[in-house]
This record gives sequence, C-alpha cells and structure tokens, in this order.
Amino acid sequence: MNALPTELLRQAEQLSSEVTRPIPGSHKIHVEGSRPDIRVPMREILLTKTPTLFGGEDNPPVTVYDCSGPYTDPAADIDLAVGLPALRAKWIEERGDTEQLSALSSEFGRAREHDPKLDIVRFPDRALPRRAKDGANVSQMHYARRGIITPEMEFVAIRENQRLDAVREAHLLKQHPGESFGASIQKFITPEFVRDEIARGRAILPNNINHPESEPMIIGRNFLTKINANIGNSAVSSGIAEEVEKLVWAIRWGGDTVMDLSTGKHIHETREWIIRNSPVPIGTVPIYQALEKVDGRAEELTWEIFRDTLIEQAEQGVDYFTIHAGVLLRHVPLTAKRVTGIVSRGGSIMAKWCLAHHKENFLYTHFEDICEIMKAYDVAFSLGDGLRPGCIADANDAAQFGELEALGELTQIAWKHDVQTMIEGPGHVPMQLIKENMDKQLRECGEAPFYTLGPLTTDIAPGYDHITSAIGAAMIGWFGTAMLCYVTPKEHLGLPNRQDVRDGIMAYKIAAHAADLAKGHPGAQVRDNALSKARFEFRWDDQFNLGLDPEKAKEFHDETLPKDAHKLAHFCSMCGPHFCSMKITQDVRDYAAEHGVDEAKALEEGMAEKSKEFLAQGAQVYRAE
Amino acid sequence: MNALPTELLRQAEQLSSEVTRPIPGSHKIHVEGSRPDIRVPMREILLTKTPTLFGGEDNPPVTVYDCSGPYTDPAADIDLAVGLPALRAKWIEERGDTEQLSALSSEFGRAREHDPKLDIVRFPDRALPRRAKDGANVSQMHYARRGIITPEMEFVAIRENQRLDAVREAHLLKQHPGESFGASIQKFITPEFVRDEIARGRAILPNNINHPESEPMIIGRNFLTKINANIGNSAVSSGIAEEVEKLVWAIRWGGDTVMDLSTGKHIHETREWIIRNSPVPIGTVPIYQALEKVDGRAEELTWEIFRDTLIEQAEQGVDYFTIHAGVLLRHVPLTAKRVTGIVSRGGSIMAKWCLAHHKENFLYTHFEDICEIMKAYDVAFSLGDGLRPGCIADANDAAQFGELEALGELTQIAWKHDVQTMIEGPGHVPMQLIKENMDKQLRECGEAPFYTLGPLTTDIAPGYDHITSAIGAAMIGWFGTAMLCYVTPKEHLGLPNRQDVRDGIMAYKIAAHAADLAKGHPGAQVRDNALSKARFEFRWDDQFNLGLDPEKAKEFHDETLPKDAHKLAHFCSMCGPHFCSMKITQDVRDYAAEHGVDEAKALEEGMAEKSKEFLAQGAQVYRAE
Repeated sequence: MNALPTELLRQAEQLSSEVTRPIPGSHKIHVEGSRPDIRVPMREILLTKTPTLFGGEDNPPVTVYDCSGPYTDPAADIDLAVGLPALRAKWIEERGDTEQLSALSSEFGRAREHDPKLDIVRFPDRALPRRAKDGANVSQMHYARRGIITPEMEFVAIRENQRLDAVREAHLLKQHPGESFGASIQKFITPEFVRDEIARGRAILPNNINHPESEPMIIGRNFLTKINANIGNSAVSSGIAEEVEKLVWAIRWGGDTVMDLSTGKHIHETREWIIRNSPVPIGTVPIYQALEKVDGRAEELTWEIFRDTLIEQAEQGVDYFTIHAGVLLRHVPLTAKRVTGIVSRGGSIMAKWCLAHHKENFLYTHFEDICEIMKAYDVAFSLGDGLRPGCIADANDAAQFGELEALGELTQIAWKHDVQTMIEGPGHVPMQLIKENMDKQLRECGEAPFYTLGPLTTDIAPGYDHITSAIGAAMIGWFGTAMLCYVTPKEHLGLPNRQDVRDGIMAYKIAAHAADLAKGHPGAQVRDNALSKARFEFRWDDQFNLGLDPEKAKEFHDETLPKDAHKLAHFCSMCGPHFCSMKITQDVRDYAAEHGVDEAKALEEGMAEKSKEFLAQGAQVYRAE
Repeated sequence: MNALPTELLRQAEQLSSEVTRPIPGSHKIHVEGSRPDIRVPMREILLTKTPTLFGGEDNPPVTVYDCSGPYTDPAADIDLAVGLPALRAKWIEERGDTEQLSALSSEFGRAREHDPKLDIVRFPDRALPRRAKDGANVSQMHYARRGIITPEMEFVAIRENQRLDAVREAHLLKQHPGESFGASIQKFITPEFVRDEIARGRAILPNNINHPESEPMIIGRNFLTKINANIGNSAVSSGIAEEVEKLVWAIRWGGDTVMDLSTGKHIHETREWIIRNSPVPIGTVPIYQALEKVDGRAEELTWEIFRDTLIEQAEQGVDYFTIHAGVLLRHVPLTAKRVTGIVSRGGSIMAKWCLAHHKENFLYTHFEDICEIMKAYDVAFSLGDGLRPGCIADANDAAQFGELEALGELTQIAWKHDVQTMIEGPGHVPMQLIKENMDKQLRECGEAPFYTLGPLTTDIAPGYDHITSAIGAAMIGWFGTAMLCYVTPKEHLGLPNRQDVRDGIMAYKIAAHAADLAKGHPGAQVRDNALSKARFEFRWDDQFNLGLDPEKAKEFHDETLPKDAHKLAHFCSMCGPHFCSMKITQDVRDYAAEHGVDEAKALEEGMAEKSKEFLAQGAQVYRAE
C-alpha cells in the first residue's frame, strides 16, 4: 500500500461533487439486454404537455445517447480516488482467455510503481492488470470473426438504437431521406450486425481488457458518428486534477472517446487517474511518452523503449493507440516543399528518427510485433497520419496520400492479426477537396473507420478553429467518417481549458449530428423534431432541455427575458409580446381542426369564412389562454 | 434646427472614441481609381521578416478587403452625431438625374421631423433627401443596361481585386483549383465585368442615392462571398447608442451589409443614426415598421401605409428592402402541416393579412408600384422568403418552393423596371438538401443573387446556432450563394449583444471565406498561405494579425504563454519548449538549400549524409539562433 497523495485526494474529492450534477430536464436510464448485467445507459429527456392553445397533447420523452457515465447519475456513488465500477470485468473473466498478472510486464511501469517520490501523485490503489493467456487473441475482432457475439457487441447494438421503438409519435419519426454515399445504414441495429461490421473491419469496439470501467461503444460509418476530445497537460501547463476534470467535463457534453495527449513529467500517473475514472475509451499517442523517456531526443528512440511503453500503457488500460507507422523514409522528402512541412508531432518525431538513422521507420518494420501486443490486451490501432497537411496549401498532396496508401497496407496486416484498426485523417483541407480524402480512404483502407481531425476549411481564423473545422467535420462525417476528432478554439494558440473543451465538444456534437441527419441515420431527426415542436409551442424549458447544452441555452434566454414567467409566455424573446409569427400558423391549424376536414383543403375553401372570423375576434395574435 | 439630444450625444461621443481603434498590425490604405475621388479602402497587414533560421526573407504585406469604413482609420475624424462624409455625393449629383427635395415625401417622415417629443432622440442635422427627377430611373442596373460604367462600378472592381497584382511571391498565390458549379469566376475583375454582371441581374450594387456615405460593394456569385449582420432593438430591449455601437462593431469584424431589424418605438430615429454613420449598405424589412404604425394589427395594414413607409425609409437612405411579395394566398394552406409553420415575421404578417382579408398579398398586387419607388432612389429588392422552413422537418417543402417560384416571377418584373434584385433563402436545411435549394434558386430566379440565412443544418443546438448555420452557410456559399446572413449564438433565444454580434460575424467570415476558397476565387488563398507561413516560422504576431480576429488570437495565446518573449520563441504553445514538430521540416529544407539541388532529390540522395550531420550536431531540434 502506498502513501496517499493527500493534496490530490483533496482536489479529487472537491471535484467529485462538482462534476456529478445531472443534466437539466433529464435523467439517466438503463436499458437491459439479454442478461441482467448488460445495462445500457441512456438519457431520457422528459417533456411537458403541449399548451392547450396548441392542442394540449402529451409529449413523449426523448431518449438520447449518453456518454457521461455514472457522473450524471444521482444514484451513483462517485469517488475519483477509487475509480468507476468495473462493469465489464465479469464478461472479460467469463471468456477464460485472459489471466491476471502477478507483476506489471513493463519495466518502466514497475519502476514508477515503486518510486516513493511518486506517492503524492499516484492513483491510490489498483489491482494488477490482465493479459491474454499465451497464444490467445482477445480482440473483439477475433471473437467477431469466429462468430461470437460478445456482451460488448450486444451492449453497443442496444446503445446505437437509442430506444427508437419507444418513440411512437409519427411526427417525431418524420425524416428526410438521407444520402449515405454507399454506407450500409440499418433501420435497426442487431447484435449480429455489430458482430459482422467488426468482423469485416468496418467498425471497431475499442475496449482494452484492462479498462473494464468502460461502457462499450462502436466506431464505424454505419453507426452514429462519434467525436473524440483531446485533453492532456504539457511541460508548460496543468496538473492531474485538472486533466481528470477535463475528462469528466468532456464526456458530460458528449465526448465519445477521449485522447490523453499529456507530455508532462507525470504522464504515467495522470493516465492512471484518467483511465480509472473514464467510462469512455481512452486513446493515447505512445510515442509522446517514449520521447519523454529519451529526454526529447528522437534519434535515441528504440524499438525496445517503444515496446515497453506500449506494454506499460496497454496494462493501464489504454483502448487505442495512435501509431505513426505509415511515415516512411520515402515520404519525408515529399514534405520539403510544403508551406508548413510536417505538423503532426508523432509524424515529425518519426521523420526525425528516419533522417537521423537513414533507416525505415521502426514502427513500420516492427508492425507485426506491435500487432502481437495489441491483440494480447485488445488495444485498437488508430493508424496516425503523421504527414497530414498543416495548412490549406498542403492539402491532398503526395506526402499525405503516400502515407494514406501505406496505412492501407498496414490495415491489411493488422486485420491478418484480427487487430481492430481505424485510420486517422487530416487536418487542413478546403471544402472542394474533402470528398477526395474520404473516397481515397475508403478505397485504400478497405472501409476501416476513418477518424479525422476536422478538417479545417481555412487557415485564417486562429481563435475560431472549432468553427473552421466543424464545417469540414460535418461534411466529411456526412461522406463517411466514423469519428471526428474535435478542435477547440485554442487550436494553434494554446492548451484548451475547461471552457474550450466544452466549446470544442459542442461544435463537434453539432457536426456529428448534422452528418447523421444527412446520411439518413434512422431516428436522427427525432430530437430535431421534438425540439422544433417545443420551440413552436413556446415550451421554453423543453427547448432548452432538448438542446445539446441546456445550461447555455437557458442562460442566453435569460439574458433577454430573465423572468421565469417568460418561459411560459407565448411569444419569443426576439419579437417581444407585441407580435409573434409562431402564432399565425396556429391560427391556420386551429381553423382546419375545428372544421374537421383536410387542413389544406379546408383552408382553401374556408379562406373567406376565416377572414370574417378573424376580424370578429378582433384579430388579436396574442390571446390569453 | 432642433433641440439637441444631449444624453444621446454624450453616449455617441463616448462611443466615438471607443470604436475607432485601428485593427492591430495593419493600417488603412486607399487605392485610387481613374479619378482622384475614387479611393477604395483596403486594409494592409504588415508582416515581419522571416527569422534567419528559416531563411531570413522579407514577407510582403497582405492586403485584405475592409468593411470597417473610416472607423479604423486614425486619420479620420469621427463624430457619430455628424455622420460620415458623403463620399458618393458628387457622383450622384454629376449624373444629373436626381434632385434635392424641398420637403420629405413621406407623411410619417414629416410628422416625426416636427415632433418636439423626438428632439431628444433625433439625429441632429441632415440635409433633405434626393429623388430621381420625374421619369428617371437612377438604379445602377439601369445605368449598366445602358452601357454606363459608374464610379460605383469601378470602385467595386478595384475593391474585389484586393490588390492581388501586388502579391508577387509565387507561394502566396499558390492555390488549389476550385469547383465553382458553373459560376463565372474571373482572374481579374474589370469595371466592365461589374457592369455586365449588374446589367444581367447576376449581381447587385446596393447604394441608395440618399446614403452617399456608403462605400460601394457588390453582391453576386461571381464576386467574393459577402455576409450580412442583423442588428436592431425590439420592444423589450436596447437603445439608439447601443444599436450604433453594434453597427460599428459589426463592420469592424467584417460585416459587408447590416440589416436594421428594429421594432421599438424609435425605429425611424434609430435608423437615421445608423444610416448616417454606416459605410456599408443598410437593409430593412419595411413591413415591421408598417406594422408598428397599425399597433401590431396586421389586418389593418394597407398599401397606403406601406407605401408611405417605403418612401420614408428610401428617403432616409435604406439600400435594400426585404419585401415578402412572394407569400401568396395559395401558399398559406401549404404551411398548415408543418412542424413550425411560418417562422418569418414578415411572412406571418402577410399570411395573417391574407387570411384576414381573403385577398391576395398586397405586396404582390402592388409589386410594380413598389418598383416605381425602388428605381426613384435606387433601393434594391431583397425578395423575402416569408415561408422559409423554421426547422429541419419543414425544409424544401411545397410552401418554401412555391414561394421561391413566385419570387422567380417577381424577379422578372423587377428586372423589367431595371430594379436591382436579390432573393432571400432558408433557414433550416439538413446538409443533403442544401444543394437542391441553390440549384432551384439559380433556375427559378435567373441567377439573381441568392442571400441565405444560414442554413442551419440541425435544430438541436440552441446557444450554438452560429455554428449549426456556419456549416450550411459555407456549403451554400460554395454552391453559389452571394451573401450569407449571419446567425448569432443567441438565435432562437434572445437579442444579440455586442459579443454575440462579434461571434456571429466571425462564424460567417469563416463560412464566406471557406466558400471563396472552394469556388476557387483568385487570390482567396493568399491570406491562408501567408498566415500558415507565419505559423510555420513562429512569427506569432504575424499569425495573429493575419487572422480574422487578431485580438482574440493574441488573448488566447497569452493565456498559455503570457510572456512577450514567447511570441518570438521557436516553439508553439501546445508542445512547449521541449520539442516542436515545425522545426523538423526546416531541417529537411536546410539540407536541400545548403546543397543547392532540387530539394526532394537532395533528400533522397543525401539521407545518409544528413543522418551523420544530424548526429554530429547533437541532433537538437531546438537550437538557439
């Protein structure tokens, strides 16, 4: 037992109470699967009745996807210093293909474990990790290819469906036909469909056996579009408590996965705190930590150091690794004439290593060795785009596309080992060149999920790159990208704080949802329809609560009309009480309803009569109820 | 002479000093045309030298389009209570087809002018307005069709070119080919091209003869994409000084036109203050004021009241009028089954009038009378989309498209009178349905400029609709929309304050620029390239200054690295001083430059040598200069 990190525990305790508020107007529900321990979390938004003036009907609750984990569940007992419950532990044990280790396998991990100087930052207590039994492959892809539907697969099938069958009202299900560009969008997601998508590599279910706290989720173009939030401190900023806070903050607003890109001196310990408290998959870029181990001298990196880092992180429970194995020696010269050269940190580390040694990238030459590690813990590949364009001018160039082709080859190798794989993508791309990226990725990488950063559609708005990139993200999501890596307003300028994380997440939830609507995901329009109906009927609180950020919406509304009474008022805050356009339509509808005939026909026939009636009533738009 | 509005003058004076700061890192320039009084304002961003490490070259200044008027010119003498200089007055007089009136033509205008109760809010002093001489048509379209190139046309030609010829460096001109979807994008804009575009109705140059303070600008799909900012108080909010401040704030950040949507009791006086101080065209929705005149009772509206309002506003100098003449009786029933019915205020006013009287919309039946007024002052039509969809569910429906077809007919009538015309568009449209809007508008309305609100690509993000709509705006701008009407974060929730105006403008400057890049406007990429080069070379201040919002960019950067020294540091604020990816490319380039051979070839050949050199130097990425 270690000495306790007292100050950190104090911060964690304080944080625990702050980050565990439920989201307004909604509550956590769990949908049970085929066995009682498959309990899929969702968020149910309760709606008020339609005002009598507009018909007086009940409005069914709307169920939405929920990434926030137990934090928003008042029934949950949160203690960041203990971590979340290991909901998948039993499923992993039941499969009988893993064993608990008697010691950490990583040399570095063991050294950190026994260093008394780290007592003040170390996560208090944790069981020893698990690993596949000798020769076993514990990846979800491996099970899928053998026809096994795991509890994880069933979990995501239920999760993706969002209880659509519970939405009975036809108007809520009303939806425009989508344009999916050849995706295989399902009306209803079955566990078998999930299995099949994972088996053929079109989707990944990232969940390391050492991260049993995670709630299974899936990334693939035939599922809902996901978003990732990057957090992480650097040499110049932030501590452990702050990073854990950013994690919880990110998932509260809808981050589907979180990447920990820390580069400071306690990245091992920070990561442990993050994983133990994360209900979403955690990704990392292991080369960042490997570089720390050689004091920033890229040329001193070795396969052995990198290998130990992979094992260290895999045994902590990292769910996916960004590996820049596609940055090849022959690509490096292709970047010389670029406006911004190599902008990916991982890409430039490997380019530097290649230049220093005049050797092929060791991540490429050791790729099969890496696969062996990945399948022993079920870590998924996120094949990094080290040569992604860092500006509009460099988009879609030979370096970028050369690397993408290499990633296509590596995907095939990973799949030979049944290792789950997704592909990272750009970067900075003007709108007219975005589709070419998606089409090439699908072709080169056999429909492995694409995971893109933005892309940013212009370079000229530092301070607003969540917006320059949300435009590109929405488009590439529509075209088929499975997960969108957020960009915060601080991109290019500094490290995101809590508010930047929220702004980045919101921009990307918007992009992902706009993409789902455009692709025609079944039920994607339910929330839009419910919100717009609430808006039309002046159900202000329902409008706020159905939004992505109820707190912000209410705050904005209250700036103009602060009184509570105004949230029931039948006028909107833009027009004031004098005149409101929403009311007109109701007059049109009322007439049709009263006369019990087809609405449109009634209106044409009854126009003259309506006219008299209007004038007789004093033609007031605003009438007391 | 009226009594002076003392309190307002005090506010105006205070405001005058606050809103007249130049934009950091740049200065106002004027490019002279064929006569000395054609002085086209632009903003020149001065750049520092490239650091020696990266080559040490000079970086030419970058000239950008500038909407901010004299406010950002330290040489200008600003007094909001006097108004801006009438730079077009001479051009208008010279044409000899207008005359100064001896009294206001509008009854309402005359009553306001002599009401002593209004002394405290009235703009202090103003010359009487002008009107076309009997039978004359003073629209730019009329001149254009007779082959006349006006000074206004020459002004916009110079303005659109943005001194591109001054950008000599090839890398700055480097640009991806665009996809313009059939637009007629020019390498260089000539005054004759401007004339021709206006003559055929593909562009409008909104500049009322009574707004001689305006700097001419053009709206058309073959020119740079423009944005509009809406301001305006309502019955529940804000005063005159605040609206003038929003105007100046909006153009500071890049609003190309401003619509004054005020509905309060001093809208006439507010408008006068705004127009006298606006260097950009001002648009209004006259029906809002007409409705005020009948105390909000739409059914009491008459052609006579509306006509007097048009004249009142035309004589103040409003440059374009939104006229909802396409909301026809037969369209009203088509809205009954919508989720959100009629959401446009103007549309619902006219629908209500039609219902109340069971008569055809008087704006439609009097359309030629309206044309007579428009051409006497050169007010442009912005044919309103009163039946635009207010939610995703209602997008592209029969009501919306029925109205669009009617607007196509009205465009032909307006053109018969040589009245400049643009067409308003939606609204809320999911991504997969956006292009259909643009294609139909081009077809139905003979390529008259399209002017869209967003569109919002999802309904679920109240508080973030600047982002939901920037996505749609960028796309529809790419497809051919000439002007994008901004949406602020407060949309659907409340009235925008100054900060919301800034956020809305920024989102739309991004969308418009992303559209210009995608269409392939010549020179559109110059600013992106210059900014990215500055970013690569760690010229932090240049990066900020080239951005759309230098102040915000600097503020964000300083949060992470507050020291001034860091703005010269050769590392970025994300990675810290330990390691930086940008430096790697420079190593690659240095090698090639030193060896005096083709860079890529040198790298392939010299890889082994480079490797030795790297190690000999201690392979430090970060080297003191």
